[in-house]
Order: sequence, then C-alpha cells, then structure tokens
Amino acid sequence: MIDVATASVESELERYFAASRLRAGDYGPHYVELWDQLEQASAGGKRARPALVLAAHNGLGGTDPAAATQLAIAFELLHTAFIIHDDVIDRDLVRRGSTNVLGAFAARGAALGADEEQAKTWGEAAALLAGDLALSQAHRIIAQLDIDPITRGRILDILDRAVFVSAAGELNDVTNTVAPHLLGIPDVLATLEQKTAVYSCEAPLQAGAVLAGASAADIACLGRFGRLIGIAFQLTDDMLGVFGDESKTGKSTVADLREGKITTLLAHARTTPEWPSIAPFIGKADLDPTEAAFVRETLTGCGSAAHTEQLARDHVALAKTELAASDLPGELRELLSTFADRAVNRIR
Amino acid sequence: MIDVATASVESELERYFAASRLRAGDYGPHYVELWDQLEQASAGGKRARPALVLAAHNGLGGTDPAAATQLAIAFELLHTAFIIHDDVIDRDLVRRGSTNVLGAFAARGAALGADEEQAKTWGEAAALLAGDLALSQAHRIIAQLDIDPITRGRILDILDRAVFVSAAGELNDVTNTVAPHLLGIPDVLATLEQKTAVYSCEAPLQAGAVLAGASAADIACLGRFGRLIGIAFQLTDDMLGVFGDESKTGKSTVADLREGKITTLLAHARTTPEWPSIAPFIGKADLDPTEAAFVRETLTGCGSAAHTEQLARDHVALAKTELAASDLPGELRELLSTFADRAVNRIR
Repeated sequence: MIDVATASVESELERYFAASRLRAGDYGPHYVELWDQLEQASAGGKRARPALVLAAHNGLGGTDPAAATQLAIAFELLHTAFIIHDDVIDRDLVRRGSTNVLGAFAARGAALGADEEQAKTWGEAAALLAGDLALSQAHRIIAQLDIDPITRGRILDILDRAVFVSAAGELNDVTNTVAPHLLGIPDVLATLEQKTAVYSCEAPLQAGAVLAGASAADIACLGRFGRLIGIAFQLTDDMLGVFGDESKTGKSTVADLREGKITTLLAHARTTPEWPSIAPFIGKADLDPTEAAFVRETLTGCGSAAHTEQLARDHVALAKTELAASDLPGELRELLSTFADRAVNRIR
Repeated sequence: MIDVATASVESELERYFAASRLRAGDYGPHYVELWDQLEQASAGGKRARPALVLAAHNGLGGTDPAAATQLAIAFELLHTAFIIHDDVIDRDLVRRGSTNVLGAFAARGAALGADEEQAKTWGEAAALLAGDLALSQAHRIIAQLDIDPITRGRILDILDRAVFVSAAGELNDVTNTVAPHLLGIPDVLATLEQKTAVYSCEAPLQAGAVLAGASAADIACLGRFGRLIGIAFQLTDDMLGVFGDESKTGKSTVADLREGKITTLLAHARTTPEWPSIAPFIGKADLDPTEAAFVRETLTGCGSAAHTEQLARDHVALAKTELAASDLPGELRELLSTFADRAVNRIR
C-alpha cells in the first residue's frame, strides 16, 4: 500500500528529469549526461521518503495530493543529493552495486583519454555538481508549493532542520574516520540519528503531517517515531553491511570492515575480550575473504551481532510504543507499524 | 555609493552566522568551526552581488528595502557556496591569499593527528558540507521572502536559472582540464558567461529589478548588461591571474599558468607563431619564476595580453551601449556605468 501511493512520484520525477535533460542540451553532451546520471542516482532508491510523506499526509486527512506529491519528490531529491555528496566525501565509485555519478564520469573521462587520477577528479566534480542540482531542486519544489504561506513556512523550517542536522551528522561521521576516538554506543546512535534518521524519517513524516494540517501532538509523535525507526533502519543497514547477502542487498560485506566504518557492532565489540583478536582487521584496506569471515565469526561469538540486532528491535519497539500512545488514526498507525517492522525483518 | 548600501547586508549576515553558530553548538566543536569557516569564506568577498541587487532594486523605484537586503544576502551566499565548492573541485587549500574552509579543516585534522591525506579528505568533506549549507540558505531566504507569490516565483526562476547555468559552466570548465581540446576564444567566453556572469551579474540585477516591479524591457536590458560586465570582470581576473600585483590582488600569478587554466590569453596565444615556445610551460606543475616571467613576456610580445585587455574593454563598451539604449533611470545608468568601468580599471 505504501508502495502504490508513490506512482505519481515516479511520473512527476520522470517529467522533471526529461525537462532538465532537454534544457541541458544547450550546454553540451556532458551536461546532458550529468542529468542522465542524476536521474539514475535517483531511480535506484526504494522511495521510502516519498512513501512516508504520503503516508502522513493521506493518513492524517490531507486533501492536497498534488502538493503532497511535490513534497514527496522534494524529500527524494534531498536524499539523492545527500547520497551523491556522501559518495564524493568517501570517493566511492559504486552505490548499491552499480556505478554512481562519480564512477560513470570517471569512466567517461578515461574513455576521453584522461589518466585515472584526472578522470576521478572529473567524476568528483560532476558528482558534486549533480548533488548541488538535486539539493537546489528539493528547495525549489518546497518554495513553490502552492499552499498557504504559514504551512509552507513550517515545511521550509522542517527542511532547514533536516539539512542542518544531516550536515552535522555527516561531519561527525567523517571526523571519526579522520581522528578516531573510542566512540561509545550512544555516540554512534547519535550520529545515525543526525546523519540519517532526521532527514529520512522525521522530516518526511512531519512535513506530510504539517501539509495535512495535523495537530501539534501528532506532528511531535511522528517526529519521535521517525527518529526511532530511522535509527533502526540504519542499524540494520550496518548489520547487512557485514552479515548481509550481497546478492540481495547489492552491498559488499567487506567494504564497511575495510573502511573501518564505526558501527554499534564495533562499538560493542571494543568492550569485549575478543576485541584484540579482530582489531588488526578493522580498517585493513586489503582485508581478504578469510579474514572477513573470521571477523564475522568473532562479532557473532562475542555477542556484538546479537547486541546490534537487539538494539534495532528495541528501537522498533520504542517506535511502536509511540504509535500506541498516540492519537494517530488507526489506519496510519497500522501502516507505520508495518513500515517499522521492515526495519528489522530485513536482517535474516 | 554602491558600497554604502550594503551595510544592512553585513549586519544581517552577521546575525545569521551568529544564530547558526549558536545552533551548531549542540553538535560539537567541529560543527561550530565549520560555521566559523563558512562565515570567513563569506566575509572575504567584495559584496559585488549584493551591491548589484540593491542597485537594481533601489534604482528602479523599489520600495521594499527589507526584502532587497534578504535577496542581496541570498546571492552573496550563493556565491559563497559556489566558490567553496569550486575549491573542492580544484582541491585548493587557499582562496584570496588566505586559508579556505578546506585548508582550515585540513590543518585542524593534522593537528588532531591525521596524516596529510586523511586531513585533506576531512577538509574536502567539511568544505562540501559548508557549501551545501550556504546553497541551502540562499534558497531558503528567497523562499521566505515576504512578497507577493508571483514576484517570488519569478525570483525563484532567476535563482533556478543561475544554479542550472553555473553548474553547466563549471562542468565545461572542469572538462577542459580533463580532456583538453583546442578551445577557441568564443568557447572560452561562453564558459565565462555560464560559470560566472549569469549568477554573479545577470541574476542579481534581474532579481533586484523584478523585486522593484520593473518593466520587462528593463529586466531584459539588465540581463544583457549583466552578462557583458560579468564576462569583462572575469577577463580582467584572468589577466590579473597572470600579470597582477599579488600584494594587491592576494592572488598568485603562477597558479593559473601551473594549472594550465584555459583563458582567452592562452586561446589567443595558441593562434600565434610564439605558441610553441611557451606551450611546454602551460600546465607545468612546478613552473618556476623565471619560466613564468618568460611566459608573461611572450604573452605580451605576441599580443595576447593586449587582445584580452581589448576584449574586456569591448565587453564594457557593449554593456554601456545597452545602458545608453535603455529606458533605465539616469541615476541607475550612471551607477552601473561606473561599476562597468571597474571591470577594466583594475588591470593596470
């Protein structure tokens, strides 16, 4: 049900990218390619953020489907901008198993005769610009919402908070890889909340609710619910990044270990006697499959895997408690409850 | 006169950065530093874009100084975002003779014990995020303008065009360094127009004029005038980047040559018999002062310097012709004419 509602989002996005490509034609083939790549980057997602916008709007008696669709698209493009810029920061050439904007332009640069370093620099430039364009369009769509000024102003504030907090979270995340310090589990959870949960769940739900004219209590409840499930989803992603089935997730299960990505898995493992046996492999750029398998076994054996799974389940349970204690309409509660379950059901 | 008008811009910007810094405190000292660096990046400019917004608004009988100030700030922050992201693309640590956001965070990372590469990566991440924040605020300010919806919609369209065209220009510019091909002078001028003139001159003038309720003819004239002087300023910047007085411009006179930056100087020089004698030095990463002096002498001797200066003067003359043929109020024409002269008077 949550998926069907996003059909209008798909067709509106398609129209937007077609129009942009047409317009880009005046500036040469590389710019057209940039828009093609931007569309592909956007097309790869699960449309979770649009689904949350529409669920909140429709579930709270909203009566402006056209504005809700636009709002849904704005949050999807915000997400597209953030993942593209995240890949620039990490210098990743691949996202979800496919070449990303950076990778596509790096390959294009190589085909034009550039050396590897130059081609990658070009790819980074293209990705940075693509992210700026998607970010700009997210802002523009909300600025253009044909709704009363007070509601639009409130949605603009939600967008502003989403951008402000995500940037803080991203900076903290990068800081950990530059100047590693022993992060406790609460620090890791705070970074997940800032970097992902606010813009991915809290903001889309609250924006949809504000558009529907929801009560302050409902809006606040959706914010708390959103942050909790946002964290749960991220915890599960971190589990899948080590223990997942690559053929299903399209995500490498060694990349996070090689990068030494700070997760609750590692924050927990550090507190166990087994830590010294795996510490040398965390952040090892050429970690091999045997070593990775040993790390996985140890993370399971020392209880870190179970701990992170439990953390995710706890966050889902807390999120459902918020729903149960709320005055949200029954149908919306049910829909969001199902959505929350997905956060943990993906693991096994 | 154009400078005095921007006092309100300074105080409003100061207030915005103070508020953001306060808000950033919740997310740790690095995020506060990011906002400090963003303010410094913004403070280094000449406020040319705000001056153009205010000149157009005030000169065309605009009666909303508060909105004009906000609009002026939006274009200044757009500029800040673009120069910060431009430095990320070029991996520059310095801007206008001072450490930029990237450089400041690279130094901070080194102080925290990161190695040089890690520290620079952190600096790039911080700069990318700082640019995203400035870009977002530029959009937010215009979205929040308390003016009639039709006027705001037109200004949003001007902003959208500025972002769209600048990204195209920046991509073209980077493409030239990755896959160099023999660019003619018209190609170089087109890139200058796209990358800089539209967002720096055309858009601020037109936005100020739209806010003032100007006629379609006046708005169109200011667009043409803006593109022409934008190009003239950029041509002069390219001259100063090779022949300038570093103590006055704060800009290295070897960096552009070492980078092999495509300018009309080089596009012209390529068509002269002297080209083979300097070609090996263009894009030479370790170009020394003697070699740079030889390149300068040759660029003067073969007429390329005079040609670029003439191009700049021609663009200023064309811009003034636009003013003369227009129905713009006399005082505004005079102000803009003086502004146009600055584009070329800086050279010697």
